[in-house]
Amino acid sequence: MTPLVDRMTVAGVGLIGGSLALAARRAGLVREVVGFGRTAANLDVALRRGLVDRVVHDEAAAADADLVVLAVPVRSCAPLAERMRPHARAGAVLTDVGSVKGAVVAALEAAWTSPGLVVGAHPIAGSERSGAGAADADLFRGARCVVTPTARTDAAALALVRRLWEGVGARVEALGPDAHDDVVARISHLPHLIAYALVRAVDDGMSSALAYAGPGFLDSTRIAASPPDVWRDIALANASALGAALGEFRRALDDLQARVDRGDADGLERAFAAAAQVRRRLGPTS
Amino acid sequence: MTPLVDRMTVAGVGLIGGSLALAARRAGLVREVVGFGRTAANLDVALRRGLVDRVVHDEAAAADADLVVLAVPVRSCAPLAERMRPHARAGAVLTDVGSVKGAVVAALEAAWTSPGLVVGAHPIAGSERSGAGAADADLFRGARCVVTPTARTDAAALALVRRLWEGVGARVEALGPDAHDDVVARISHLPHLIAYALVRAVDDGMSSALAYAGPGFLDSTRIAASPPDVWRDIALANASALGAALGEFRRALDDLQARVDRGDADGLERAFAAAAQVRRRLGPTS
Repeated sequence: MTPLVDRMTVAGVGLIGGSLALAARRAGLVREVVGFGRTAANLDVALRRGLVDRVVHDEAAAADADLVVLAVPVRSCAPLAERMRPHARAGAVLTDVGSVKGAVVAALEAAWTSPGLVVGAHPIAGSERSGAGAADADLFRGARCVVTPTARTDAAALALVRRLWEGVGARVEALGPDAHDDVVARISHLPHLIAYALVRAVDDGMSSALAYAGPGFLDSTRIAASPPDVWRDIALANASALGAALGEFRRALDDLQARVDRGDADGLERAFAAAAQVRRRLGPTS
Repeated sequence: MTPLVDRMTVAGVGLIGGSLALAARRAGLVREVVGFGRTAANLDVALRRGLVDRVVHDEAAAADADLVVLAVPVRSCAPLAERMRPHARAGAVLTDVGSVKGAVVAALEAAWTSPGLVVGAHPIAGSERSGAGAADADLFRGARCVVTPTARTDAAALALVRRLWEGVGARVEALGPDAHDDVVARISHLPHLIAYALVRAVDDGMSSALAYAGPGFLDSTRIAASPPDVWRDIALANASALGAALGEFRRALDDLQARVDRGDADGLERAFAAAAQVRRRLGPTS
């Protein structure tokens, strides 16, 4: 395949950034990948595993890049873009992989060389694992990737980011940044908050019960092992949509608990059946 | 292996009952398994798959059984035991596989030929699938099975049920019925209620978001596809312990939401990190 770009710089060579770097290299989408990150030990792993061609230990990593990918916790994206901007060449496209888009894309547009060259993207893939050691060239195969163009987005920049994600196997779809944030508040951010709360509740309330955890508990709390700094940023950056989703969840939980409390067997079964029908349509687990 | 018993009757040849029947037959733990259930079509599947040797379509299925296993929704257990009792021989051991033990074991002790011959058991295994078609001879291999003897339980009956579960690969452990119910309220019943509520909340609040469900949502809601009648009975039969567990969960969720609302980044990260550390100790998913 003809490379899409000569040089791609990936800031944050962890599970997502490292997997994208490796997949893009393997697919011949880039001539060279430069890795950048806070942690020298992680960059060493990235180099040793061949996720990147070379590493640069400061923001000059963005120099001469055609495409800069930010794969750092979402609240670090805009400050990092500001620090990289003096090193970037005019025309460099900036994209990210964060799970929150509204506030983040707006801040990136303000921070970059030109707002039109910013393209928000969010691959809906991953696992509770993190770091360059967890990177996997097949992570995005068959996964959905949402791109979130704004009125300012340059068409060629958008097409480039689309082709990058399609090239690593993702199904790309466009949504407005705020619409994206409303969706992921429900299907991702809320479930993470619930999983963290569930593990804490059992640990605080009856930690001896954890020894009996079976497949149900393990699956339903898998994502509570996710990196705390990443999810701290996501929850805070999408607090408004997350609050709305939490309200919806509390109403559903209150309703189920009320049916249990009043011994409403038929009503409880109907509510469980409605949820089971919806869930079965979504297919099996990851 | 010398069989433990000549005849085992399994009432409810679904995922759990059918898997136990098949595993016990394959391991040579029983000379004959008689299947009984409400649904002729499911019994046909059980026969065709060789889960049972034969089926009996009424409560006389208990006749001449050395061991009767109730694998029906928990609130059907005691009424079924009462109906089977006239057919059962003196000395027949009665056990169940239900996820609630306190009220259920007491009711079984009252309903059976002798309270000492009742042995509560709960294999902590399974999946969201149900029916004879989902039965799997390896379902209990490596799983934990909790037996819940009371002051009345006959030692030989308890030893028989222990050997049955050990014979199909489970790690057997004893707990008092009420202690068992407190544990499973936290690690099983609460997660199920949460999963059902989460699916309903998203379906009611923004059903279009479901199309974007990724691995996190799928894993954390897998158990919301579980059979509604089974979980209706469990929630009602263990309402008191489930209510306590719900209270613990609500406090943990309130605490996380408060940290999000006041933008307490450090506090939120600490709370997430504490949960992640606990969850990582439990190991991977099912």
